[in-house]
Amino acid sequence: MDGSVVGDASAAVRGVAPLDRASVEELSFLASGKYVPLFERSRAGVVLLPEALVGTPGSARARVVVREPYEAMLRVLPSLYPARDEPAAIHATVAIGRGARIGDGVSIGAHAVIEEGAELGDGVRVGPLCVVGRGVRVGARSQLFPGVTLYPGTTLGQRVIVHAGARVGSDGFGYVYRDGEHRKIPHVGQCIVEDDVEIGANTTIDRGSIDDTVIGAGTKIDNLVHVGHNVRLGRLCLVMAQVGISGSVRVGDGVILAGQAGIGGHLTIGDGARIAGQAGVFGDVPPGESWSGYPARPHREALRAQAALFRLSGLIGRIERLLERDTE
Amino acid sequence: MDGSVVGDASAAVRGVAPLDRASVEELSFLASGKYVPLFERSRAGVVLLPEALVGTPGSARARVVVREPYEAMLRVLPSLYPARDEPAAIHATVAIGRGARIGDGVSIGAHAVIEEGAELGDGVRVGPLCVVGRGVRVGARSQLFPGVTLYPGTTLGQRVIVHAGARVGSDGFGYVYRDGEHRKIPHVGQCIVEDDVEIGANTTIDRGSIDDTVIGAGTKIDNLVHVGHNVRLGRLCLVMAQVGISGSVRVGDGVILAGQAGIGGHLTIGDGARIAGQAGVFGDVPPGESWSGYPARPHREALRAQAALFRLSGLIGRIERLLERDTE
Amino acid sequence: MDGSVVGDASAAVRGVAPLDRASVEELSFLASGKYVPLFERSRAGVVLLPEALVGTPGSARARVVVREPYEAMLRVLPSLYPARDEPAAIHATVAIGRGARIGDGVSIGAHAVIEEGAELGDGVRVGPLCVVGRGVRVGARSQLFPGVTLYPGTTLGQRVIVHAGARVGSDGFGYVYRDGEHRKIPHVGQCIVEDDVEIGANTTIDRGSIDDTVIGAGTKIDNLVHVGHNVRLGRLCLVMAQVGISGSVRVGDGVILAGQAGIGGHLTIGDGARIAGQAGVFGDVPPGESWSGYPARPHREALRAQAALFRLSGLIGRIERLLERDTE
Repeated sequence: MDGSVVGDASAAVRGVAPLDRASVEELSFLASGKYVPLFERSRAGVVLLPEALVGTPGSARARVVVREPYEAMLRVLPSLYPARDEPAAIHATVAIGRGARIGDGVSIGAHAVIEEGAELGDGVRVGPLCVVGRGVRVGARSQLFPGVTLYPGTTLGQRVIVHAGARVGSDGFGYVYRDGEHRKIPHVGQCIVEDDVEIGANTTIDRGSIDDTVIGAGTKIDNLVHVGHNVRLGRLCLVMAQVGISGSVRVGDGVILAGQAGIGGHLTIGDGARIAGQAGVFGDVPPGESWSGYPARPHREALRAQAALFRLSGLIGRIERLLERDTE
Repeated sequence: MDGSVVGDASAAVRGVAPLDRASVEELSFLASGKYVPLFERSRAGVVLLPEALVGTPGSARARVVVREPYEAMLRVLPSLYPARDEPAAIHATVAIGRGARIGDGVSIGAHAVIEEGAELGDGVRVGPLCVVGRGVRVGARSQLFPGVTLYPGTTLGQRVIVHAGARVGSDGFGYVYRDGEHRKIPHVGQCIVEDDVEIGANTTIDRGSIDDTVIGAGTKIDNLVHVGHNVRLGRLCLVMAQVGISGSVRVGDGVILAGQAGIGGHLTIGDGARIAGQAGVFGDVPPGESWSGYPARPHREALRAQAALFRLSGLIGRIERLLERDTE
Repeated sequence: MDGSVVGDASAAVRGVAPLDRASVEELSFLASGKYVPLFERSRAGVVLLPEALVGTPGSARARVVVREPYEAMLRVLPSLYPARDEPAAIHATVAIGRGARIGDGVSIGAHAVIEEGAELGDGVRVGPLCVVGRGVRVGARSQLFPGVTLYPGTTLGQRVIVHAGARVGSDGFGYVYRDGEHRKIPHVGQCIVEDDVEIGANTTIDRGSIDDTVIGAGTKIDNLVHVGHNVRLGRLCLVMAQVGISGSVRVGDGVILAGQAGIGGHLTIGDGARIAGQAGVFGDVPPGESWSGYPARPHREALRAQAALFRLSGLIGRIERLLERDTE
């Protein structure tokens, strides 16, 4: 860390914690004046703080002056919590199918299932109770947390992280109504997840029907998100919890979809667009725009309409009376 | 296929793909003039297209003229991708409880658990890491993908498909507040899933408290859907991703609930009704009607209200000034 | 039961069922006059009913007069469906890591994984295919249904119930954008679930980044709920299906969040507040208030605005014409 130390420069810490829970052996941070009362009572041994707050009274053995305390805290985390260097091991209970190819330094947890013809790149870590389906390829250094299912037809790039219970490559929701029943459309497309994607817990991503489902490199997907069949999600998007993306939607690069937003089928969301939490999108969104509301509109329009509605609320009676008198 | 062939009638294909990804050994389709540019550059060996587009320039070795190219493509899929005829096998690691009955031709994947007294009909396929609870009955030719849990009290009909991670027959959300705590209501009802139902990945369906939860024959449920306790879903419904159906709701036959729609507790949705994406339904919906919005209203009313709101948005200032001058 | 019996006081029952499905060996209840037609046709052997309906014609061998039939039914359930007294057993296929501590009377189902240093209190029941992560502590008499994952950093109190497929303590959704990529923020906080909490099927609860995520004692969470990192949920809350709580939200005690409601990041919901189904909360909610709508407002205001909107809908044309004529 680059900061200058005020106090006992030899004070050592073994972990980080928020001001109100930190012990004398822990590092904490004071990001703004708002938290001064917590700082004053804090038992933290070392505290990161900005120049302006260095004189705040408190018992920390050392204060480290940095420009951005929270950012500095994030930078110091890896050294205090080094990634566990677990020996690569394949648990004795793992079921491995014929023709599966396992790279160097691969770990596989208890009761996992690697089906026939699957390929795990070097350094891949598969958690307990995962299923890597028939013929699935998982790129180098990717990690599956416990209980993940990768259906046949799925390919993961390198350094992909998949959290517990996510289902990738499942059949899409496609039927043709004929002879009194909903007949299932076969799904023969792929589900392609590019490098550096992260997929949240219990999220579901369907594979394509004839086309493919593609998740672009560096995109991060939160928990309980649904991605329908044939969706193309661009690069470096952020898709927050419980978002639903209907089938055949095209999402550009760098798009942010906030929590519980829903995108209707076959729509296009342009590069860099931002969709607000719970927005219901029923039309294409141009690049760079921010949309909100239900049905979603450009954010300023949606705000204006909401404001007008609440002003109307107090006036509607008078408007009705005025119109009654208006005999023209 | 009934279509007439233009070009090399001997051209053979080994799979299907969209125009922009198909190789010379693949079949593709040109559904409308909109995709002509893709067709012109496509490497597809054989392309299904309508009469009107048969003369479009392009390099396909053969063109097959059909009335509905996409539909024709769906019909041809089963012959190009025959269902894998996997030998019935029960993996050595499966845990089978006392008194469980396993039909003929049943497959059970690695590390699955079949609890005591469960019954699997002929031809049932249970994926790896599934749990079929105590006394659960699964009808003939049903299929469980990996990681499914069927709680005790669940019955599946024939040809039911349950996708990875779905939980069927879980305890409903029912408590009575007494003596300073939320006391759990026992759930002694059943969860009955009729023939030909499909249940999406990570979907949850609670069993009944005293009454039963019933999913009608031929109904299809997408991913991450929630069905509360005592719900009766009719036959041949389509329930799209992330829909939430509260406890004790009655849904008729042939109802469509679009993505993220929510239905409040104890309501009735009539036969053939259609509920739009993200609609929030707080009242009964008569048969055959289309509802949308939040709170949901008949679709035309909801559209009219939305349109009025956006017209109001530009007028509210003038309305306020008019009312100010209106001294009566 | 305190009720007085009319009819054959020796009539015995073996279970409960709703009026329309009960057999002569089952107990049912008639809660209100609305269900008299079902009662008249019912085959139930014994029926609980209120004084006012005791004379209704029907074939039940015995009628038991009680003040609140449904409540009485709930009270009688435990004696008719006693909790199964299953012998404590650790299945031979369970993988137990070094240093794990297993209390007295613990049951662990097939293919479960108890990682190193985990601690299971007395009487804990772990379902098949669960993962109790490294160092996780599970309090006495807690129960995990099948397929649950507890990430390292999670602590469960006593008598906690976790339903199938829930993921507790997963990494939060936190990234810093730098050098053209979303860099992952390490999550070194905890996920602390206090006594008597129930967590629904396929629900996800993230652990804290630096701070902790805390679920207060006696709070009940339904299926498919998302709780973000650093959230503090109070005691005795009810969180219904598919609710989404964004990161760092503070929720007081006794709060009710109805189905599919969403709470934006860093907000505070006061003690005893009630949030309606599908409400989208973008601001703090004071204690004791009921809010609804999108964006959410106090429930009365939201209702008034909705009513005004639908009245406006029929008037907007006339308002526009009036403003046109208004030349001032």
